[in-house]
Amino acid sequence: MKRTSFANWPCSVARTMNLLGDWWTPLVLREAFYGISRFDQFQGELGIARNTLTDRLNRLVEYELLRKEQYQVDPVRYEYVLTEKGKDFYPVLAAMSAWGDRWLDKGAGPPIVFHHRSCDHDVTAEVVCSHCKEPLEADGVEHRIGPGYPARIAELPQVKARFDAQRLD
Amino acid sequence: MKRTSFANWPCSVARTMNLLGDWWTPLVLREAFYGISRFDQFQGELGIARNTLTDRLNRLVEYELLRKEQYQVDPVRYEYVLTEKGKDFYPVLAAMSAWGDRWLDKGAGPPIVFHHRSCDHDVTAEVVCSHCKEPLEADGVEHRIGPGYPARIAELPQVKARFDAQRLD
Repeated sequence: MKRTSFANWPCSVARTMNLLGDWWTPLVLREAFYGISRFDQFQGELGIARNTLTDRLNRLVEYELLRKEQYQVDPVRYEYVLTEKGKDFYPVLAAMSAWGDRWLDKGAGPPIVFHHRSCDHDVTAEVVCSHCKEPLEADGVEHRIGPGYPARIAELPQVKARFDAQRLD
Repeated sequence: MKRTSFANWPCSVARTMNLLGDWWTPLVLREAFYGISRFDQFQGELGIARNTLTDRLNRLVEYELLRKEQYQVDPVRYEYVLTEKGKDFYPVLAAMSAWGDRWLDKGAGPPIVFHHRSCDHDVTAEVVCSHCKEPLEADGVEHRIGPGYPARIAELPQVKARFDAQRLD
């Protein structure tokens, strides 16, 4: 079944989702953040079918979140290393994890604790405003058409209405 | 095809993914954050098949991110309103959007600009440490077994090794 492609939607959430493809992909990334780099390790930790894992790793290499590096000559073996773009995805998973800890722990507490090395505390991820550093909340943000929004779509009455409806002023 | 269930994995990322089900779900949530609440509006904005939309809305109601409320008596009509749990998912989408803006904009700039009402600036989402408020980065966090991690799994040698490998001290 062909999935709808979100790659060209003027929405960074949709584009990110298109890149990830399915939910295995962030779990493969999670393993990379845990320090896993070799195919058999990913496979063992996730219990994922080998062909599915191959596909997800290739996808992450294609989109440059992982880089394939040879670590052995005979026989030739590769490992998968996080790129800058891949490492920068960590905060997204951290925010997702914090939400899951709050809402899906069934009262048992977080399965995994994040220990922040630099401040030496057990912490959670908080999503804040880049300017005032206050928490970024749904009701506090107005979404406006940005420079990367296709001009011909931005002109459509229903699109203008969609964004104008958010303006409180 | 039956999807692997991640609901009972001791990982809040996996649990969150299991709840979302597929990538349409966060896009339905995105629309809710844009102020959309009625079936036909969701359908029109997303161009999603009606049966798929019904399924995703029901899923979000079942998991209590949306609440179904009657807004018209004759004929009976419902709208879908964000709950506290649903609103609290906003920061996850905001963090995802910020990453997409940085890495997937093809040089065109962000398609959507986040305007923070309280500080009156165009901003982006930043993910920081709940204690020291510094950015939370992949290399700066050690992931430890938490209270919600099943004890019998935590005892397994390969699981202990997996988490011990992250300790720098």
